[in-house]
Order: sequence, then C-alpha cells, then structure tokens
Amino acid sequence: MLPRFFVPDLDPATEIVALPPDEALHLGRVLRLRPGADVRVFDGIGGEWCGVVAEVQSRRATVRIGASAAAAAELRVPMALAVATLKGDKMDDVIRDAVMMGVRSIQPIVSARAEMSTSEAARRARVGRWQRIAVASAKQCGRAVVPPVEPARDFTAWIRDQRDRADVGLMLVEPSAQTPVRRLRDIPTPSAVTLVVGPEGGWAETELTQGADAGLVSVRLGGRTLRADAVPLVALAACHALWDDS
Amino acid sequence: MLPRFFVPDLDPATEIVALPPDEALHLGRVLRLRPGADVRVFDGIGGEWCGVVAEVQSRRATVRIGASAAAAAELRVPMALAVATLKGDKMDDVIRDAVMMGVRSIQPIVSARAEMSTSEAARRARVGRWQRIAVASAKQCGRAVVPPVEPARDFTAWIRDQRDRADVGLMLVEPSAQTPVRRLRDIPTPSAVTLVVGPEGGWAETELTQGADAGLVSVRLGGRTLRADAVPLVALAACHALWDDS
Repeated sequence: MLPRFFVPDLDPATEIVALPPDEALHLGRVLRLRPGADVRVFDGIGGEWCGVVAEVQSRRATVRIGASAAAAAELRVPMALAVATLKGDKMDDVIRDAVMMGVRSIQPIVSARAEMSTSEAARRARVGRWQRIAVASAKQCGRAVVPPVEPARDFTAWIRDQRDRADVGLMLVEPSAQTPVRRLRDIPTPSAVTLVVGPEGGWAETELTQGADAGLVSVRLGGRTLRADAVPLVALAACHALWDDS
Repeated sequence: MLPRFFVPDLDPATEIVALPPDEALHLGRVLRLRPGADVRVFDGIGGEWCGVVAEVQSRRATVRIGASAAAAAELRVPMALAVATLKGDKMDDVIRDAVMMGVRSIQPIVSARAEMSTSEAARRARVGRWQRIAVASAKQCGRAVVPPVEPARDFTAWIRDQRDRADVGLMLVEPSAQTPVRRLRDIPTPSAVTLVVGPEGGWAETELTQGADAGLVSVRLGGRTLRADAVPLVALAACHALWDDS
C-alpha cells in the first residue's frame, strides 16, 4: 500500500493540493518522502486519488493530484458503534480498531459504570484526540472514509433518541444475554446495525431496561469473560462474518 | 468473578492444596487475600473447584478445596490457531487474545516473512513466557483449560504434517483470497477448525502453494488492511459467530 494522506475538503479539480500541517509533517519528517514519490490522498468521505509529491518543506508539503483510485470498500451493511468510555489508552484502542473494522460512526457514551466522566470525555473530544486516532487508523487500513467520533453523551439521553431507529440495534450484555451472537444468523441481513457496548463493569439494571425499551436486542459473545476493550472488535467481527460480503 | 488460581495436576481428593509459587504470590502479594477468602482453583484441563484460602505466607499459600464449580464453557467447535511470529509484545497480545477467544492450542510458526527467528522463538518458549501469558489469560477469561503454546516450528515442516488433517483448515490471506469469510456460512458446521494466520508482511508465494496443497481454504476478512496482531482475534470471532453457539 502506498503512503496515504488525508486532505479534508479535497477538490479533485485542483491540480496541486497542500496537505494539512499534521499530514505534511508525516510525509516529510516521519516518512521522509521527497518530490516525485508516489502517494495516495483521500478526502475522508470516500474519495481517493493517486498523487505525486510536488514540494516538501519543513512544515509544508504539496501533492500533484492524478487519477482517482480505489480505496478499501466500505461495509455493505453499515455499522455504527456506541461504546461506553473506557480508561485512557483503552478507549484509544477501541476507536482505532472500530475504524479498522469499517464502522460508519463512533458514539462515546457515559453510562452509570463508565470509566470516564462526561467532562473528561468532552475534554478529549475538544482536543481532537479521538478524531485524530480515527484519521490515523483510516490511513493505515486503507479506508477513504474517516468516520466521525461524535461528542460523548450520557447513556440515558442517547438511548431516548434510539426509539425510532430503523436499523437493527444490538446491545452487548455479558454473560447473561439470552441470545448468543450465532443466533443472529436466523434474522434477515439488516439494512444497518448499531452495536452498543458497555463498560468494564457492565450495564446497570436500569440501562438494560432502557435498552430493551428502545428495541435493542441483547446478545452475548460467548461463555468467556472478554476484555472490555476487545468487545467492540469481537462484536464487529461477528457482525461482519454474519452479514458483510466484502 | 471470584479470584481464580491455576493448580496444575490438582487432585480434588486432596483436602488442602498448596498453590504454585507464582500463584501464591498473586494471591498474597497482588490481591492481598487472607485466610477465609473465597476463591476458585482450576487444573488447566477443565476442572474447577470452589475453595477457601487456608494459609498465606510470603511465598506460600494453601487453599481448602470445596465443591466442583462451573468454568466458562469450552467451544463446541474446537479451534486451533497456527500463527506466524510477530514482534515481541504483539505476539504476547496474540496469545492472550487467542486464549480469551477459546482456542484449544496455539502453534507459533516461523514463516518466510515472520518477524522472529526460530532461535528467538525457541528462547521465548524456553523461558515459558508464552505459556505464562496463556495461564494469565485463562485466569481472567474464566476458562479452566490452559491451552498449550507449542514450540515454534518452521512453516514448511509444519505444513507437511497438515496433509491428513480431518478438521477444516483456513488460511488467512489478505486481501487477495477468493473466499470472503462470510461464504463460510455455506459449509456445514465443521467438527474442528485450524486457523492459519500469516505475519505482517504476508505469506510468500511458495507458502500459499504449500497451504493449498495441504487442503487449506484461503479466506479473507474484508477489504480493509487489518493490523497483523488483530487478525487472529478477528478471525476467531468470525468463526465463533458462524459456528459456535455458546
């Protein structure tokens, strides 16, 4: 895979585009690319193009845009992830992995037993940390789409908005959920999926009730206790195996 | 989940068992348990019992054995993992995650592009590092089975022994394999599965040919480039969703 760079709002009619400062540093300082090097650029909403490095200075790099190129295919069954916040680095890993598994959006949720307060989650969102991780993951996994990491919300407020969802909503509940994930084979391929993953300490009883009231199907991933930060990856891989054919 | 301790060769007819030194340290120094505390002990081959801490000294701890107890269920479709060695910590994570996902054995493989030499892999096996990681993961995920981490083998020698396998063998080949994992829905539930995962740099052409000659089905997990250390977890989750009903 050629080195890939993210240029939001890229207009392919432009002959030469300047990379954003972070991307210019990555090109020049980290990868040490020089004028003439073949690269790819993508716009974060599905467009990807061949390119050739035109100019490299300390904090500036430009790329001459060429033909459009094929990025990694997006999922045929769009999957959204709503995930209770985990401690520091674990949340970073969840976002990295979810983008790699093809999610269309990530909604951090502060639930009763979540490991991060709403204000700490807001601080992380403000400094753009989670969105930068999403960009880095999209670059590595070959997607031309950078899924948005939404501002964190309280579970109770978020679940109220889920009542009229048209997609299939799955609430991961270990180990007590009635439905093992394999039983999902028996339902028709959904038009879209929302996966709702709890924190290390699990859901509170009231949250389980609110989830059921909002039409979420409670599923479990197996008899073993999974690390909380592995659950989104395992659940997305399961849904992918059941429904996506890319 | 109560704290769990691994006692190989545990004889449940014994009234009081002494924990191995590592486990005694974990009980006394790390968890600071005292006589009278409720615990679980397991023998690594499927047996688990209730227990009560009897005695704690600096490097010694004993447990009074009670009734037998239910551990996490083992997979109905046994899954073995053969995985090309990755750099240091990544290989540790692969072993931890594979045990958590319920594998029955782990075979480290030195392939043409593997990131660890046979001698380095042998050194790590000799010091028991990988097997200790398997024990720690079994303790955390609730399994009473500690899967063996076999001595590393060269791919060419290992694949020769795979020709007469009775189970279904899947060779993960990104991104060029013809069969997306979802197509595996169409085959009958296998009696057992061996998953064969390559290194960061992928398989050499000759290895792909050797795999096909040994009857391995080449599958891919989707259009995106997955981190090499995430592939075993994603592939095991996919097989679990397709075939296991625990």
